[in-house]
Amino acid sequence: MRKGILFIVSGFAGAGKGTVTKQIVKEDEHLKLSISATTRDMRNGEAEGVDYFYVTKDEFQRKIKNGELLEYAKYGDNYYGTPRDYVKKMLDEGNDVLLEIEVLGAAKIKASLPKTVRIFVTPPTAEELKNRLVGRGRDSAEDITRRLNRAVDEAEDIDDYDYLLVNDTVEQCVKDLHSIVEAERMKVKRQVSFISAIKTQLQELNKEE
Amino acid sequence: MRKGILFIVSGFAGAGKGTVTKQIVKEDEHLKLSISATTRDMRNGEAEGVDYFYVTKDEFQRKIKNGELLEYAKYGDNYYGTPRDYVKKMLDEGNDVLLEIEVLGAAKIKASLPKTVRIFVTPPTAEELKNRLVGRGRDSAEDITRRLNRAVDEAEDIDDYDYLLVNDTVEQCVKDLHSIVEAERMKVKRQVSFISAIKTQLQELNKEE
Repeated sequence: MRKGILFIVSGFAGAGKGTVTKQIVKEDEHLKLSISATTRDMRNGEAEGVDYFYVTKDEFQRKIKNGELLEYAKYGDNYYGTPRDYVKKMLDEGNDVLLEIEVLGAAKIKASLPKTVRIFVTPPTAEELKNRLVGRGRDSAEDITRRLNRAVDEAEDIDDYDYLLVNDTVEQCVKDLHSIVEAERMKVKRQVSFISAIKTQLQELNKEE
Repeated sequence: MRKGILFIVSGFAGAGKGTVTKQIVKEDEHLKLSISATTRDMRNGEAEGVDYFYVTKDEFQRKIKNGELLEYAKYGDNYYGTPRDYVKKMLDEGNDVLLEIEVLGAAKIKASLPKTVRIFVTPPTAEELKNRLVGRGRDSAEDITRRLNRAVDEAEDIDDYDYLLVNDTVEQCVKDLHSIVEAERMKVKRQVSFISAIKTQLQELNKEE
């Protein structure tokens, strides 16, 4: 069976990564969202194995020690990480996997899984990024300044990515992301068994002639 | 202005390259079909600069000598070649260009224009290839045998291509080809000016804060 492709999706806070990745997995049954492990508490409306795998700090530290995480990071008091076995299992089953992750984590995963395809999501302009951060009403003025500051650093890493996905409207952005996923599936290097099959068929057909 | 992308489309005779490339340029105004130069006579219904650039053998040989062709080949008594200036002009104007060409010509063009994207078109099975060759009623039984024979050799070169495009139905194949074109347009290496612009905008925005 064909092994799945791992797609990493990074981007500025406020670029709309979450909306776009949640939408595309609804439209493509062979594309699955990866689920992170976290030590933070479950929030209202969240569910185990849907939004996150919720673990204790002790469990998380054991996972780090045992190499069970492809990458991890600490934000504030909480750990977040990508479970190696969970991702591997989905890929082995032939699913393509979307992993939403920030630039440092993306670099770590690319280093251990070099076939990973990396996509960076950005709004059409910096002004629009600011408008979205203000518009979603989730961050204080101080937070917004901090996020825009971080965006300057993150922008320096875009060159390490394979694709730049400009999120103007969600609908178009989902369509564009789908083009990337479909194109990657058509890469010759990922069609080894089809190519081998058609070569054999052609040889058989020529013998019959 | 953004420079265009050159896409080479090769594939087995009978794979449906012509139908698919003619259809996609109708749907995408930034994508143009390249036109070859030939020494063969103009046929009924054809037009200069639409189907081919029609030239004499002397003119063709002068073009070869002056390096005016990206590649050329001789079939029977006639020459066919890809005009370098014509392709270059379209790319410089920001158009993406589709060039339908066989595997040897594709290799020559890739050697002189390494950024070229190469796509190989195949029917889903060898049996289906034979059915299509028979079905289009253009070739003698001998010609069909010869084409199937050549397909065995051509299949050996698929590994040099970037994408494998399986032509099951024309509609789906045009859609898939469009995914490849769109994905290539989103490659980070082709978005240099956008990336530079958003970096500057983010820096300006942070100064204002």
